[in-house]
Amino acid sequence: MLKTYLYKDLNKEKIQELVSRNTDPNHAIQDTVLNIIEEVKKHGDAALKSYAKQFDKVELEELYLGQDEIDALAMGISRDQMRALEIAFQNIHKFHQTQLKRERTVETMPGVKCWREVRPIEKVGLYIPGGSAVLPSTLLMLGVPARIAGCKEIVVCSPPQNNGKINGFVAYCLKLLQINKIYLVGGAQAVAAMAFGTESIPKVNKIFGPGNQFVTKAKSIIQGLTDVSIDMPAGPSEVLVIADESANPAYIAADLLAQAEHGIDSQAILVATSETITEAVKKELESQLQILPRKELAEQAMKNSYMVVTETLQEAMDFSNQYAPEHLILETNDWKPLINKVLNAGSVFLGHLTPESAGDYASGTNHTLPTSGFARSYSGVSVDSFVKKITFQHISEEGLEQIGSTVEILAELEGLHAHKNAVSIRKK
Amino acid sequence: MLKTYLYKDLNKEKIQELVSRNTDPNHAIQDTVLNIIEEVKKHGDAALKSYAKQFDKVELEELYLGQDEIDALAMGISRDQMRALEIAFQNIHKFHQTQLKRERTVETMPGVKCWREVRPIEKVGLYIPGGSAVLPSTLLMLGVPARIAGCKEIVVCSPPQNNGKINGFVAYCLKLLQINKIYLVGGAQAVAAMAFGTESIPKVNKIFGPGNQFVTKAKSIIQGLTDVSIDMPAGPSEVLVIADESANPAYIAADLLAQAEHGIDSQAILVATSETITEAVKKELESQLQILPRKELAEQAMKNSYMVVTETLQEAMDFSNQYAPEHLILETNDWKPLINKVLNAGSVFLGHLTPESAGDYASGTNHTLPTSGFARSYSGVSVDSFVKKITFQHISEEGLEQIGSTVEILAELEGLHAHKNAVSIRKK
Repeated sequence: MLKTYLYKDLNKEKIQELVSRNTDPNHAIQDTVLNIIEEVKKHGDAALKSYAKQFDKVELEELYLGQDEIDALAMGISRDQMRALEIAFQNIHKFHQTQLKRERTVETMPGVKCWREVRPIEKVGLYIPGGSAVLPSTLLMLGVPARIAGCKEIVVCSPPQNNGKINGFVAYCLKLLQINKIYLVGGAQAVAAMAFGTESIPKVNKIFGPGNQFVTKAKSIIQGLTDVSIDMPAGPSEVLVIADESANPAYIAADLLAQAEHGIDSQAILVATSETITEAVKKELESQLQILPRKELAEQAMKNSYMVVTETLQEAMDFSNQYAPEHLILETNDWKPLINKVLNAGSVFLGHLTPESAGDYASGTNHTLPTSGFARSYSGVSVDSFVKKITFQHISEEGLEQIGSTVEILAELEGLHAHKNAVSIRKK
Repeated sequence: MLKTYLYKDLNKEKIQELVSRNTDPNHAIQDTVLNIIEEVKKHGDAALKSYAKQFDKVELEELYLGQDEIDALAMGISRDQMRALEIAFQNIHKFHQTQLKRERTVETMPGVKCWREVRPIEKVGLYIPGGSAVLPSTLLMLGVPARIAGCKEIVVCSPPQNNGKINGFVAYCLKLLQINKIYLVGGAQAVAAMAFGTESIPKVNKIFGPGNQFVTKAKSIIQGLTDVSIDMPAGPSEVLVIADESANPAYIAADLLAQAEHGIDSQAILVATSETITEAVKKELESQLQILPRKELAEQAMKNSYMVVTETLQEAMDFSNQYAPEHLILETNDWKPLINKVLNAGSVFLGHLTPESAGDYASGTNHTLPTSGFARSYSGVSVDSFVKKITFQHISEEGLEQIGSTVEILAELEGLHAHKNAVSIRKK
């Protein structure tokens, strides 16, 4: 079923090919998305209502649901489900709140004080995919850090169901986050609405969240076109599992399939230190696949996937660092010494009892992570993503004496005389 | 000379107009830049040598200078200049090194441990503008945090002078940073070279640095096109000065002109609490302008600039937060209570003796800052810009018992059965 490569047979070019992802698979939809953006910019709410009719099969009078409607929908879920969402909320909150820190002042020279202060991004937009998939977990993963950061306005957009409502789970998460409005807009049109603002929907400073290829494309266009920024470029989800003889093949197969069920473009990779492991995992995959409700999706996704057999865990880590996986699971008893060797990854799951799905939902870490190799230069979403750090400096008379001539010399050698003069005039 | 508005006469639309910048003034050069990118991607070093001939008027045999040549060039500057660059280096280092911190582990539930670890971005590219301007300070501002972060490979590109060399000041900074190679490539072609790699120039993971409109456009295209990320979108430099009666009009004028001399598209804005101040500053501007070597540039830039008269410092801060300036100077005795009111800015200069030029060169803060209103959602460059934060989690047997059913319930309500199974199979 799965292609299997021996690491020792792979040359540099082949490794490069294996770790490469197509970073712009959606070029074909560029024109469609540009057109949607233009329509929303021009016609605002009217365009959004027309798209709701076209794509979501619903005629909307208002483009949002308010507090009462959210409350009513949230009541429709079971007590167990409420409790599970609450625990996820609490764990995510507990982990993320440690990310907000005051920084200390540095006196770089006597009388020259410098420091950074953290300020929330004032208006943020969260896109929560909907329709067939229901992703309350994504709302928690974006809403919790936004709340901790102290963002003044949190705009949430999600496509309406064809009854003009949203899902009860999403409604319950809105309540946990104390957000009392949700905009019933999906797709590229939601991104455009938050980027430009419409009669109903406020313009935001930064847009967060995953979505289908249209949402992704719209975010990438918006980033180049406007003064609105985005959380990160997005691509299909992926996992890389590193395993040695201590691993349980059934656990590995379950983890690979959990990735594969996301969509046909997902990638699930196993890097194992022996063929005994890869063979055992293949058997497990075949039997576990049979009972999956999303079997067809997962089967398709496994076609993009592969296995690599290395001789050592070090080789496995080398391959993983070149691949830079969104999710990395280390299914070995020896995970401790591997931690320092992880150079490129979004989120890492250590040992045999830490499945990725724990982090997807409830361990406390964020599940909005860099895909497509972007883990080489991007971090996942955190409170950092919802704040700016502004530098401040104060120079006293003593400080100006200390630093003045240095600034004058440097300004002069760069040929910027007015820069020099701004110091000289103060020294008089 | 300068347009002056009374804040009380400004309606919401007029304020919106005043705080808006043209975020894509370079759309016209898109095709030129795309063509350069394509050429470099296809022809590598050969394309770079051809562009050096065309744009930098120099025939290059090698596309870089090595240690010996850098050493020789660095010896050509004066002892005072060396000392000034050393002090800048030390202050920048002292301030930035506090930004690298270990984070603590959070046990979100008994047996569920989560934390973040900081890892350097492995390969970074620094673009240092050259040609007529000489910007050793920019090399320090990018090189110091890259070194502190621990980036393995620091690729520096700068256009060659027409003798095929670089400036001695830049060479001396390379020595301070212990970088022993500089690539003689400028413009959009340098960005393309670092994004795709050529025979001589390594492909990097993230590209930093300011530049002319071609460099800026190339960075923005690269960001959407490849798996290489960039520091931030760039636009013309800008300053906003807030002043009350305690301010010295001569200092204010000097600060505005220091901004204006950057280029004709720079913007220098004064928001003052009385017309007495704005009138006095206008007089100072006229007299100080006369003696500036870059008088023509500054005069042009002043045409994009304006003054606003408010009744209170609070109003001035409100305007500033809407504008979101790259540089904000608070020329008032009452700067302390204003600190908490600064919501959107790149870097802030407090009081009468803290000119922007101190931060441009030597106070220790970074001068690579968000322009064009991006201070609403971006921070300036810091050590953070050169690292990723990777989340790790470990779940023990006890932890799995604690968190297992929560994950199962959430996976089930999202319809992701393989996610649920990855937990269930471990609970058996």
